[in-house]
Amino acid sequence: MKRTTFHAVILSGGSGERFWPLSTPDRPKQFLSVFGGKSLLRQSVDRLLGLVPPERILVVTASALVAATRRELPMLPRANVIAEPCRRDTAAAVATACGVVERRAGEGAVAAILTADHIMGDVKAFRCVLADAARAAADSDDIVTMGVTPDYPATGFGYIQMGEKVDTGTATSFRRARRFVEKPDAPTAKRYLASGGYAWNAGMFVWKVSTMKAALAKGSPELASLESAVADPRRAVAKVLSERYPGLPRISIDYAVMEKASNIIVSEGDFGWDDVGTWSSADRHLATDARHNVLKGDVAVLDVADTVAISDASGPKVAVLGVNNLVIVATGQSVLVADKSRVQDLKKVLAVMSQEHGAKKEKKGRRGK
Amino acid sequence: MKRTTFHAVILSGGSGERFWPLSTPDRPKQFLSVFGGKSLLRQSVDRLLGLVPPERILVVTASALVAATRRELPMLPRANVIAEPCRRDTAAAVATACGVVERRAGEGAVAAILTADHIMGDVKAFRCVLADAARAAADSDDIVTMGVTPDYPATGFGYIQMGEKVDTGTATSFRRARRFVEKPDAPTAKRYLASGGYAWNAGMFVWKVSTMKAALAKGSPELASLESAVADPRRAVAKVLSERYPGLPRISIDYAVMEKASNIIVSEGDFGWDDVGTWSSADRHLATDARHNVLKGDVAVLDVADTVAISDASGPKVAVLGVNNLVIVATGQSVLVADKSRVQDLKKVLAVMSQEHGAKKEKKGRRGK
Repeated sequence: MKRTTFHAVILSGGSGERFWPLSTPDRPKQFLSVFGGKSLLRQSVDRLLGLVPPERILVVTASALVAATRRELPMLPRANVIAEPCRRDTAAAVATACGVVERRAGEGAVAAILTADHIMGDVKAFRCVLADAARAAADSDDIVTMGVTPDYPATGFGYIQMGEKVDTGTATSFRRARRFVEKPDAPTAKRYLASGGYAWNAGMFVWKVSTMKAALAKGSPELASLESAVADPRRAVAKVLSERYPGLPRISIDYAVMEKASNIIVSEGDFGWDDVGTWSSADRHLATDARHNVLKGDVAVLDVADTVAISDASGPKVAVLGVNNLVIVATGQSVLVADKSRVQDLKKVLAVMSQEHGAKKEKKGRRGK
Repeated sequence: MKRTTFHAVILSGGSGERFWPLSTPDRPKQFLSVFGGKSLLRQSVDRLLGLVPPERILVVTASALVAATRRELPMLPRANVIAEPCRRDTAAAVATACGVVERRAGEGAVAAILTADHIMGDVKAFRCVLADAARAAADSDDIVTMGVTPDYPATGFGYIQMGEKVDTGTATSFRRARRFVEKPDAPTAKRYLASGGYAWNAGMFVWKVSTMKAALAKGSPELASLESAVADPRRAVAKVLSERYPGLPRISIDYAVMEKASNIIVSEGDFGWDDVGTWSSADRHLATDARHNVLKGDVAVLDVADTVAISDASGPKVAVLGVNNLVIVATGQSVLVADKSRVQDLKKVLAVMSQEHGAKKEKKGRRGK
């Protein structure tokens, strides 16, 4: 590995809908501590410590979440929590992070883009792959994507088709990326798994600043211009962001850069990664009783099976009787009761809820006239 | 009807378990206003007004519920809400009420024992039958039980087998009671319904003080003695009750008196009576949507059918997704999620809950040492 500095950037967005009511817009999924005692955000920093010094760990998040993020991550310098003035998907966040890393450490610095709300079952394996990916990125002009070797035909993740092997001189195996593919249907996912030529796209990648700058220039002149402005030490980062963000495209880094770039290699590995997209996938990561129930908090059950029942610290007493295959989540403010097979439609019932809330407000308003 | 005074006694006990979490020990079912805007207790007084003056309406309830009862029934004189020092089933309450009525109006007075937490769908019909039952009781030495003509083979109520017709000179039809029978199984209930010779035992009966005194003397000397002591104008009622109650048998009026008495007649009628014993029977009395859901309070549903979902005034937002045949009830403190077919086992899950609560407390206690 060339002499350079290694930085980590944690993208910490999220609308808080998928794990409602535990998660809310003010406390999206990465703040939940239901998966392992500490919040997912804190876990995502903790697993870097020793590999990346806190001074080189950046978190990019929404303005509204900055205070909560700083409280959750007291080991980070305040300036390392970067506020996005408005929501603009991942491409803008990556360009901003690239600019900040260049500003601090120059074009030769290497940065990893990481996630705030995923689970890594095998932290040791994750750190090995991440370190090797950083070496590979430092020693080449490739963007390194951290692929995950699939162990079941998941339809909930995107995939990367891989080509020939690439020798990076590290213990980790790397292959050239051929193309990024969207979430497949079930037969396609089976085919991907059987072929051995596909990795899950975990949304984590590692690059040298100069490499990402070139990729931004090719993929999106607007984002390249944002990167340069952020990197300019004569300008204040917050001011640049507040001026530029409203006009930026809402586009993911996959669309803006990765799908257009030809210099992408994929690290292979299985470090127990899961993005835990819904309540129904949560029970893979939570302790279950003999009847395959996940029970947390002030919950009593009788004749209940295959059910997730959670009441949070401020939540009510919950009694559950004679049901199967439900997700029941209660906080002091809200309660969800859903069939487990339907939790992917959680956003739809929240839309019904906010419509009704709107209708009630309107009714009240009219009455007031 | 002989010249006499007519009194109404509302037995207002209840443990608050059957409609948990809306009902609680501090607010048992008769305080719920979910069935028709006003509380069932208030409704049970309101439907008497015009027939019985408030001064002659007594409520017998637990000490702990006296204040709430007086707040709920401001039209009643304070002394008409009678506190039982401890729980002793219905026989003790009836003997107490008999004593109070004798004390105030003598042995010729007539009293009806009524319920605080039942629904009368047809108040007009109920008042007619009640008035005729009072006349029949005044003009004879019979105890009049208000039977309800069954319209389906209910297994949740006790029945009264009826014999020959009795002419009381009123518009209501009366028959002599042969025997009281417990809640039947389904085939037996069908047989009862088909025979036409059985009425539901609604737990409401009307008697002259002298008649009830004789029945108490025959059925339970202890209760007869309580009645006399309460009736004695030289003694304070509250003092008599606090001295006698702890030693009284826990026995229902059906066991103590009705099943032993031979002078019982049954009024026939159908006034839309229901004791609404469980959440699953509640939907007979609540407005349903097109998919047969009962939805009350801050509740949003998507793809939900045959479900009762209620959030009370202090309750949380509730979102329900893709479920059938559930009972979901939420308050600020507690949430119930049960299969509708299992709500008769609600007490069992509450027992699990209180055990776990006890275990947690014990654990905490130990930790503290």
